[in-house]
Amino acid sequence: MKKTCSLCAGDGGVVILRTSSWRVVLAEDEPLHPCLVRVIAQKHLAEMTDLAPAERSECMALVFRMEETLRRILSPAKVNLASLGNMTPHLHWHIVPRQSDDPHFPGSIWAPPLRQTGVLSRPPGFEMALRQALENL
Amino acid sequence: MKKTCSLCAGDGGVVILRTSSWRVVLAEDEPLHPCLVRVIAQKHLAEMTDLAPAERSECMALVFRMEETLRRILSPAKVNLASLGNMTPHLHWHIVPRQSDDPHFPGSIWAPPLRQTGVLSRPPGFEMALRQALENL
Repeated sequence: MKKTCSLCAGDGGVVILRTSSWRVVLAEDEPLHPCLVRVIAQKHLAEMTDLAPAERSECMALVFRMEETLRRILSPAKVNLASLGNMTPHLHWHIVPRQSDDPHFPGSIWAPPLRQTGVLSRPPGFEMALRQALENL
Repeated sequence: MKKTCSLCAGDGGVVILRTSSWRVVLAEDEPLHPCLVRVIAQKHLAEMTDLAPAERSECMALVFRMEETLRRILSPAKVNLASLGNMTPHLHWHIVPRQSDDPHFPGSIWAPPLRQTGVLSRPPGFEMALRQALENL
């Protein structure tokens, strides 16, 4: 735990699942991408290769389960997966469902938006569907 | 194979490793990030969850081996991992070693550059070191 790290100090979103090693959260700080999900390490470490191979697999299983779930619920044009952490070097993955008319498409969501329209809204029961998808992992 | 897809039509960089399912390439089209490595599916498919779990693991093993190698050779401030594919929906991972004074840091490399200085140069023997790291996988 690092006091100056926002992902040590807070959850980084609405917690959907919490295990001893990981938490899955629904982002609350991405108004243009409200269906963005994050998989966040509980420990403060920076890189995937700071983890043992079995821990990396555990992490990616959560990432892929979320990708699968977002595809099923939203039928996005594309899913973006990214572990960047340049500003917050605490291991976290972004799982981002994209639509062809969303504010950044076909650019990355870390570039300036191209339009303010086409925000992918959360369908009814979205949070519950994510929770259910993680129940049987 | 899709005729209109640039990653079906070409390698997408200097090929470091080629297997029946994957190729690892050193990017030739990223002048601000010349040490960027890509892991690219040989088949034309878009998402990680289009693959069977064992194939996903094979892919991530290459991604993590490259992350490990770039860390060892370059001691970057951070490594960025991303599978976006909004413009080229043919599964490929970017493994991007970052330095704290590189042209985009701490932003993503898909945002406008913040400066033109600090380009991470390829050290002598870089390509050979990548090849060697993949020999014993």
